Amino acid sequence: MKAVNLIEKQSGRAFKLNKGNILTVIDPEGQQVSDMVLFNINDLNEKLSSGKSLDFEESILLTKGNFLWSNRSNKMVKIIEDTNGRNDFLLAPCSKETFEIMYKFKGYHPSCLENLHKNLKPFGILIDDIPTAFNIFMNVQFDENGKITVLPPTSKAGDYIQFEAQMDLLVCLTSCSAEDSNGGSFKTIQYVVESKHL
Amino acid sequence: MKAVNLIEKQSGRAFKLNKGNILTVIDPEGQQVSDMVLFNINDLNEKLSSGKSLDFEESILLTKGNFLWSNRSNKMVKIIEDTNGRNDFLLAPCSKETFEIMYKFKGYHPSCLENLHKNLKPFGILIDDIPTAFNIFMNVQFDENGKITVLPPTSKAGDYIQFEAQMDLLVCLTSCSAEDSNGGSFKTIQYVVESKHL
Repeated sequence: MKAVNLIEKQSGRAFKLNKGNILTVIDPEGQQVSDMVLFNINDLNEKLSSGKSLDFEESILLTKGNFLWSNRSNKMVKIIEDTNGRNDFLLAPCSKETFEIMYKFKGYHPSCLENLHKNLKPFGILIDDIPTAFNIFMNVQFDENGKITVLPPTSKAGDYIQFEAQMDLLVCLTSCSAEDSNGGSFKTIQYVVESKHL
Repeated sequence: MKAVNLIEKQSGRAFKLNKGNILTVIDPEGQQVSDMVLFNINDLNEKLSSGKSLDFEESILLTKGNFLWSNRSNKMVKIIEDTNGRNDFLLAPCSKETFEIMYKFKGYHPSCLENLHKNLKPFGILIDDIPTAFNIFMNVQFDENGKITVLPPTSKAGDYIQFEAQMDLLVCLTSCSAEDSNGGSFKTIQYVVESKHL
Protein backbone atom coordinates (compact mmCIF):
# COMPACT_ATOMS: atom_id res chain seq x y z
CA MET A 1 0.00 0.00 0.00
CA LYS A 2 1.28 3.39 -0.94
CA ALA A 3 0.62 6.07 1.66
CA VAL A 4 -0.92 9.12 -0.01
CA ASN A 5 -0.09 12.32 1.84
CA LEU A 6 -2.41 15.30 1.61
CA ILE A 7 -1.31 18.92 1.49
CA GLU A 8 -4.36 20.94 2.51
CA LYS A 9 -5.27 23.95 0.37
CA GLN A 10 -3.05 26.99 0.91
CA SER A 11 -0.56 25.05 3.01
CA GLY A 12 2.73 23.14 2.70
CA ARG A 13 4.67 20.07 3.88
CA ALA A 14 8.37 19.36 4.34
CA PHE A 15 9.83 15.84 4.44
CA LYS A 16 12.97 13.81 3.84
CA LEU A 17 13.51 11.91 0.59
CA ASN A 18 16.34 9.42 0.48
CA LYS A 19 18.58 8.95 -2.55
CA GLY A 20 16.91 6.54 -4.96
CA ASN A 21 13.43 7.08 -3.55
CA ILE A 22 10.59 8.08 -5.84
CA LEU A 23 8.42 11.13 -5.10
CA THR A 24 5.10 11.44 -6.92
CA VAL A 25 3.33 14.82 -6.78
CA ILE A 26 -0.35 14.54 -7.74
CA ASP A 27 -2.94 17.16 -8.67
CA PRO A 28 -6.01 15.31 -7.35
CA GLU A 29 -8.70 17.71 -8.62
CA GLY A 30 -6.89 19.34 -11.57
CA GLN A 31 -5.79 22.95 -12.19
CA GLN A 32 -3.67 23.31 -9.06
CA VAL A 33 -0.02 24.36 -8.72
CA SER A 34 2.60 23.10 -6.27
CA ASP A 35 5.82 24.94 -5.52
CA MET A 36 8.74 22.65 -4.73
CA VAL A 37 12.12 23.46 -3.17
CA LEU A 38 14.94 21.01 -2.47
CA PHE A 39 17.91 21.01 -0.10
CA ASN A 40 20.76 18.56 0.42
CA ILE A 41 19.67 17.20 3.80
CA ASN A 42 23.29 16.70 4.84
CA ASP A 43 24.30 20.29 4.02
CA LEU A 44 21.42 22.72 3.75
CA ASN A 45 23.58 25.34 2.00
CA GLU A 46 23.31 23.16 -1.10
CA LYS A 47 19.93 23.76 -2.66
CA LEU A 48 17.83 23.87 -5.79
CA SER A 49 19.09 26.32 -8.43
CA SER A 50 16.91 27.58 -11.26
CA GLY A 51 19.93 29.02 -13.07
CA LYS A 52 21.96 25.79 -12.93
CA SER A 53 18.92 23.68 -13.92
CA LEU A 54 18.27 25.86 -17.01
CA ASP A 55 21.98 25.87 -17.83
CA PHE A 56 22.47 22.13 -17.85
CA GLU A 57 19.04 21.17 -19.23
CA GLU A 58 19.09 23.96 -21.85
CA SER A 59 15.36 24.55 -21.51
CA ILE A 60 12.98 26.91 -19.71
CA LEU A 61 10.36 24.15 -19.49
CA LEU A 62 11.41 20.99 -17.66
CA THR A 63 9.69 17.63 -17.94
CA LYS A 64 10.30 13.85 -18.21
CA GLY A 65 14.01 13.11 -18.71
CA ASN A 66 15.22 16.42 -17.24
CA PHE A 67 17.19 16.78 -14.02
CA LEU A 68 16.89 19.53 -11.42
CA TRP A 69 20.32 20.75 -10.28
CA SER A 70 21.76 22.37 -7.16
CA ASN A 71 23.72 25.61 -6.73
CA ARG A 72 26.81 23.36 -6.51
CA SER A 73 26.10 21.81 -9.93
CA ASN A 74 24.97 18.46 -8.59
CA LYS A 75 21.89 16.57 -9.76
CA MET A 76 19.16 16.64 -7.10
CA VAL A 77 16.27 14.80 -8.79
CA LYS A 78 15.46 13.28 -12.17
CA ILE A 79 11.96 13.72 -13.59
CA ILE A 80 10.98 10.18 -14.53
CA GLU A 81 7.29 10.76 -15.38
CA ASP A 82 5.16 13.82 -16.08
CA THR A 83 1.60 13.32 -17.31
CA ASN A 84 0.80 17.04 -17.63
CA GLY A 85 4.15 18.33 -18.89
CA ARG A 86 4.15 22.01 -17.92
CA ASN A 87 6.54 23.08 -15.15
CA ASP A 88 9.06 25.88 -14.92
CA PHE A 89 11.30 28.01 -12.70
CA LEU A 90 10.25 31.42 -13.98
CA LEU A 91 8.32 33.04 -11.14
CA ALA A 92 9.15 33.16 -7.44
CA PRO A 93 6.87 31.53 -4.85
CA CYS A 94 3.91 33.85 -4.20
CA SER A 95 4.45 35.95 -1.07
CA LYS A 96 2.45 38.57 0.82
CA GLU A 97 4.16 41.17 -1.36
CA THR A 98 2.93 39.37 -4.51
CA PHE A 99 -0.63 40.01 -3.39
CA GLU A 100 0.06 43.57 -2.20
CA ILE A 101 2.08 44.71 -5.24
CA MET A 102 0.52 42.74 -8.11
CA TYR A 103 -3.07 42.39 -6.93
CA LYS A 104 -3.40 45.43 -4.64
CA PHE A 105 -4.68 43.04 -1.98
CA LYS A 106 -4.81 44.44 1.56
CA GLY A 107 -4.67 42.41 4.75
CA TYR A 108 -3.50 38.86 5.38
CA HIS A 109 -3.25 36.45 2.46
CA PRO A 110 -1.70 32.98 2.73
CA SER A 111 1.22 32.46 0.36
CA CYS A 112 3.58 29.76 -0.87
CA LEU A 113 6.59 31.60 0.56
CA GLU A 114 4.99 31.70 4.01
CA ASN A 115 4.07 28.02 3.74
CA LEU A 116 7.53 27.03 2.58
CA HIS A 117 9.07 28.99 5.43
CA LYS A 118 6.66 27.68 8.06
CA ASN A 119 7.56 24.09 7.13
CA LEU A 120 11.30 24.63 6.61
CA LYS A 121 11.87 26.72 9.75
CA PRO A 122 12.10 23.63 12.02
CA PHE A 123 15.10 22.54 9.90
CA GLY A 124 16.83 25.90 10.54
CA ILE A 125 16.15 27.40 7.12
CA LEU A 126 15.63 31.15 7.03
CA ILE A 127 13.10 32.80 4.73
CA ASP A 128 15.92 34.57 2.84
CA ASP A 129 17.48 31.18 2.09
CA ILE A 130 14.48 29.77 0.23
CA PRO A 131 15.42 29.50 -3.46
CA THR A 132 13.26 30.12 -6.52
CA ALA A 133 10.93 27.14 -6.51
CA PHE A 134 10.20 24.60 -9.23
CA ASN A 135 6.66 25.49 -10.27
CA ILE A 136 4.91 22.14 -10.74
CA PHE A 137 1.81 22.18 -13.02
CA MET A 138 2.15 25.98 -13.35
CA ASN A 139 1.08 27.30 -16.73
CA VAL A 140 3.38 30.26 -17.35
CA GLN A 141 3.20 31.29 -21.00
CA PHE A 142 5.83 33.47 -22.64
CA ASP A 143 6.11 35.00 -26.09
CA GLU A 144 9.21 35.62 -28.22
CA ASN A 145 9.66 39.02 -26.56
CA GLY A 146 9.75 37.34 -23.16
CA LYS A 147 6.36 38.71 -22.04
CA ILE A 148 5.00 36.46 -19.28
CA THR A 149 1.35 35.52 -18.71
CA VAL A 150 0.10 33.18 -15.99
CA LEU A 151 -2.83 31.01 -17.17
CA PRO A 152 -4.81 28.37 -15.25
CA PRO A 153 -2.95 25.05 -15.19
CA THR A 154 -3.66 22.52 -17.94
CA SER A 155 -3.41 19.68 -15.41
CA LYS A 156 -6.46 17.42 -15.10
CA ALA A 157 -7.59 15.49 -12.02
CA GLY A 158 -5.03 12.76 -11.35
CA ASP A 159 -2.18 14.26 -13.36
CA TYR A 160 1.16 13.66 -11.68
CA ILE A 161 4.91 14.20 -11.91
CA GLN A 162 7.46 11.74 -10.58
CA PHE A 163 10.97 12.47 -9.33
CA GLU A 164 13.82 10.09 -8.52
CA ALA A 165 16.10 11.51 -5.80
CA GLN A 166 19.76 11.71 -6.81
CA MET A 167 20.93 12.57 -3.27
CA ASP A 168 19.42 12.54 0.23
CA LEU A 169 17.02 15.48 0.20
CA LEU A 170 14.86 17.74 2.28
CA VAL A 171 11.80 18.49 0.13
CA CYS A 172 9.16 21.14 0.70
CA LEU A 173 5.94 21.25 -1.34
CA THR A 174 2.94 23.58 -1.27
CA SER A 175 -0.64 23.71 -2.44
CA CYS A 176 -0.45 27.11 -4.09
CA SER A 177 -2.22 30.00 -2.39
CA ALA A 178 -2.43 32.36 -5.37
CA GLU A 179 -5.67 32.96 -7.22
CA ASP A 180 -3.80 33.54 -10.48
CA SER A 181 -1.99 30.24 -10.66
CA ASN A 182 -5.02 27.99 -10.18
CA GLY A 183 -7.80 29.98 -11.84
CA GLY A 184 -9.18 31.32 -8.56
CA SER A 185 -9.77 27.87 -7.06
CA PHE A 186 -7.78 26.75 -4.06
CA LYS A 187 -7.19 23.05 -4.03
CA THR A 188 -5.13 20.36 -2.37
CA ILE A 189 -2.02 18.58 -3.61
CA GLN A 190 -1.12 14.97 -2.83
CA TYR A 191 2.25 13.26 -2.70
CA VAL A 192 3.56 9.74 -2.36
CA VAL A 193 7.06 8.63 -1.34
CA GLU A 194 8.19 5.16 -2.40
CA SER A 195 11.47 3.41 -1.84
CA LYS A 196 13.34 2.40 -4.98
CA HIS A 197 12.48 -1.28 -4.93
CA LEU A 198 8.75 -1.15 -4.17
CA MET B 1 35.18 63.99 -15.36
CA LYS B 2 33.65 60.59 -15.04
CA ALA B 3 36.00 57.90 -13.78
CA VAL B 4 35.82 54.87 -16.05
CA ASN B 5 36.63 51.65 -14.23
CA LEU B 6 37.99 48.69 -16.11
CA ILE B 7 37.16 45.05 -15.41
CA GLU B 8 39.95 43.05 -17.00
CA LYS B 9 38.99 40.05 -19.12
CA GLN B 10 37.86 36.99 -17.15
CA SER B 11 37.76 38.92 -13.87
CA GLY B 12 35.34 40.80 -11.63
CA ARG B 13 34.90 43.86 -9.38
CA ALA B 14 32.76 44.56 -6.32
CA PHE B 15 31.85 48.08 -5.16
CA LYS B 16 29.31 50.10 -3.22
CA LEU B 17 26.55 52.01 -5.01
CA ASN B 18 24.56 54.49 -2.97
CA LYS B 19 20.81 54.99 -3.33
CA GLY B 20 20.16 57.42 -6.18
CA ASN B 21 23.55 56.88 -7.81
CA ILE B 22 23.76 55.90 -11.46
CA LEU B 23 25.76 52.86 -12.59
CA THR B 24 26.65 52.57 -16.26
CA VAL B 25 27.95 49.20 -17.52
CA ILE B 26 29.70 49.50 -20.86
CA ASP B 27 30.75 46.90 -23.43
CA PRO B 28 33.80 48.74 -24.80
CA GLU B 29 34.64 46.36 -27.65
CA GLY B 30 31.27 44.75 -28.33
CA GLN B 31 30.04 41.14 -27.94
CA GLN B 32 30.92 40.75 -24.29
CA VAL B 33 28.74 39.69 -21.37
CA SER B 34 28.78 40.93 -17.77
CA ASP B 35 27.16 39.05 -14.90
CA MET B 36 25.79 41.34 -12.19
CA VAL B 37 24.66 40.50 -8.65
CA LEU B 38 23.30 42.93 -6.07
CA PHE B 39 23.06 42.91 -2.29
CA ASN B 40 21.52 45.34 0.20
CA ILE B 41 24.75 46.68 1.69
CA ASN B 42 23.10 47.16 5.08
CA ASP B 43 21.79 43.58 5.23
CA LEU B 44 23.53 41.16 2.89
CA ASN B 45 20.78 38.54 3.29
CA GLU B 46 18.67 40.75 1.03
CA LYS B 47 19.81 40.17 -2.53
CA LEU B 48 18.88 40.08 -6.19
CA SER B 49 16.07 37.65 -7.04
CA SER B 50 15.45 36.43 -10.58
CA GLY B 51 12.07 34.99 -9.57
CA LYS B 52 10.82 38.21 -7.97
CA SER B 53 12.14 40.33 -10.86
CA LEU B 54 10.30 38.18 -13.43
CA ASP B 55 7.18 38.17 -11.24
CA PHE B 56 6.86 41.90 -10.86
CA GLU B 57 8.14 42.89 -14.32
CA GLU B 58 6.16 40.11 -16.07
CA SER B 59 8.92 39.54 -18.59
CA ILE B 60 11.85 37.17 -19.17
CA LEU B 61 13.78 39.94 -20.94
CA LEU B 62 14.44 43.08 -18.92
CA THR B 63 15.39 46.45 -20.34
CA LYS B 64 14.79 50.22 -20.02
CA GLY B 65 11.94 50.94 -17.62
CA ASN B 66 12.19 47.63 -15.77
CA PHE B 67 13.25 47.24 -12.15
CA LEU B 68 15.37 44.46 -10.65
CA TRP B 69 13.91 43.23 -7.35
CA SER B 70 15.23 41.58 -4.20
CA ASN B 71 14.23 38.32 -2.50
CA ARG B 72 12.32 40.57 -0.04
CA SER B 73 10.28 42.13 -2.84
CA ASN B 74 12.05 45.49 -2.76
CA LYS B 75 13.23 47.40 -5.81
CA MET B 76 17.04 47.32 -6.03
CA VAL B 77 17.75 49.17 -9.30
CA LYS B 78 15.79 50.74 -12.14
CA ILE B 79 17.09 50.30 -15.70
CA ILE B 80 17.07 53.86 -17.05
CA GLU B 81 18.92 53.30 -20.34
CA ASP B 82 19.83 50.24 -22.40
CA THR B 83 21.32 50.78 -25.86
CA ASN B 84 21.60 47.05 -26.67
CA GLY B 85 18.42 45.76 -25.07
CA ARG B 86 19.13 42.08 -24.45
CA ASN B 87 19.59 40.98 -20.83
CA ASP B 88 18.02 38.17 -18.84
CA PHE B 89 18.16 36.03 -15.71
CA LEU B 90 17.91 32.63 -17.38
CA LEU B 91 21.30 31.00 -16.89
CA ALA B 92 23.46 30.85 -13.79
CA PRO B 93 26.93 32.46 -13.72
CA CYS B 94 29.39 30.14 -15.48
CA SER B 95 31.35 28.03 -13.00
CA LYS B 96 34.09 25.41 -13.23
CA GLU B 97 31.30 22.80 -13.45
CA THR B 98 29.81 24.62 -16.47
CA PHE B 99 33.03 23.99 -18.35
CA GLU B 100 33.42 20.42 -17.07
CA ILE B 101 29.82 19.31 -17.62
CA MET B 102 28.75 21.29 -20.68
CA TYR B 103 32.03 21.67 -22.55
CA LYS B 104 33.94 18.60 -21.29
CA PHE B 105 36.79 20.97 -20.42
CA LYS B 106 39.48 19.54 -18.16
CA GLY B 107 41.76 21.55 -15.88
CA TYR B 108 41.44 25.08 -14.56
CA HIS B 109 39.14 27.54 -16.32
CA PRO B 110 38.32 30.99 -14.96
CA SER B 111 34.58 31.51 -14.40
CA CYS B 112 32.11 34.22 -13.46
CA LEU B 113 31.11 32.35 -10.29
CA GLU B 114 34.75 32.22 -9.17
CA ASN B 115 35.19 35.91 -9.98
CA LEU B 116 31.98 36.90 -8.20
CA HIS B 117 33.05 34.90 -5.16
CA LYS B 118 36.63 36.22 -5.16
CA ASN B 119 35.35 39.81 -5.09
CA LEU B 120 32.45 39.25 -2.68
CA LYS B 121 34.36 37.15 -0.15
CA PRO B 122 35.90 40.21 1.59
CA PHE B 123 32.32 41.30 2.37
CA GLY B 124 31.62 37.95 4.06
CA ILE B 125 29.54 36.48 1.23
CA LEU B 126 29.80 32.71 0.75
CA ILE B 127 29.82 31.09 -2.68
CA ASP B 128 26.52 29.33 -1.89
CA ASP B 129 24.92 32.71 -1.22
CA ILE B 130 25.57 34.16 -4.67
CA PRO B 131 22.22 34.46 -6.44
CA THR B 132 21.40 33.86 -10.11
CA ALA B 133 22.98 36.86 -11.82
CA PHE B 134 21.48 39.42 -14.16
CA ASN B 135 23.08 38.54 -17.48
CA ILE B 136 23.93 41.89 -19.08
CA PHE B 137 24.33 41.88 -22.89
CA MET B 138 23.84 38.10 -22.88
CA ASN B 139 22.05 36.79 -25.95
CA VAL B 140 20.03 33.84 -24.72
CA GLN B 141 17.47 32.83 -27.30
CA PHE B 142 14.46 30.65 -26.47
CA ASP B 143 11.73 29.15 -28.59
CA GLU B 144 8.06 28.54 -27.74
CA ASN B 145 8.97 25.13 -26.31
CA GLY B 146 11.42 26.77 -23.95
CA LYS B 147 14.54 25.41 -25.71
CA ILE B 148 17.50 27.64 -24.85
CA THR B 149 20.38 28.59 -27.16
CA VAL B 150 23.24 30.92 -26.25
CA LEU B 151 24.34 33.11 -29.18
CA PRO B 152 27.11 35.74 -29.34
CA PRO B 153 25.90 39.06 -27.88
CA THR B 154 24.34 41.58 -30.25
CA SER B 155 26.09 44.42 -28.35
CA LYS B 156 28.36 46.68 -30.37
CA ALA B 157 31.40 48.58 -29.11
CA GLY B 158 30.18 51.31 -26.75
CA ASP B 159 26.79 49.82 -26.00
CA TYR B 160 25.77 50.41 -22.41
CA ILE B 161 23.08 49.85 -19.79
CA GLN B 162 22.35 52.29 -16.99
CA PHE B 163 20.92 51.55 -13.56
CA GLU B 164 19.60 53.90 -10.88
CA ALA B 165 20.08 52.47 -7.38
CA GLN B 166 16.86 52.23 -5.36
CA MET B 167 18.70 51.36 -2.13
CA ASP B 168 22.30 51.36 -0.87
CA LEU B 169 23.88 48.45 -2.70
CA LEU B 170 26.87 46.18 -2.91
CA VAL B 171 27.33 45.46 -6.62
CA CYS B 172 29.53 42.81 -8.22
CA LEU B 173 30.19 42.73 -11.97
CA THR B 174 32.24 40.40 -14.15
CA SER B 175 33.79 40.29 -17.60
CA CYS B 176 32.44 36.91 -18.61
CA SER B 177 34.88 34.00 -18.77
CA ALA B 178 32.79 31.67 -20.96
CA GLU B 179 33.60 31.08 -24.61
CA ASP B 180 29.93 30.51 -25.40
CA SER B 181 28.58 33.82 -24.18
CA ASN B 182 31.00 36.07 -26.07
CA GLY B 183 31.61 34.10 -29.25
CA GLY B 184 34.98 32.76 -28.10
CA SER B 185 36.50 36.19 -27.49
CA PHE B 186 37.39 37.29 -23.99
CA LYS B 187 37.04 41.00 -23.50
CA THR B 188 36.87 43.66 -20.84
CA ILE B 189 33.88 45.44 -19.36
CA GLN B 190 33.86 49.04 -18.14
CA TYR B 191 31.68 50.74 -15.55
CA VAL B 192 31.05 54.25 -14.31
CA VAL B 193 29.44 55.35 -11.05
CA GLU B 194 27.92 58.84 -10.90
CA SER B 195 26.11 60.58 -8.12
CA LYS B 196 22.53 61.55 -8.85
CA HIS B 197 23.11 65.24 -9.43
CA LEU B 198 26.14 65.17 -11.69
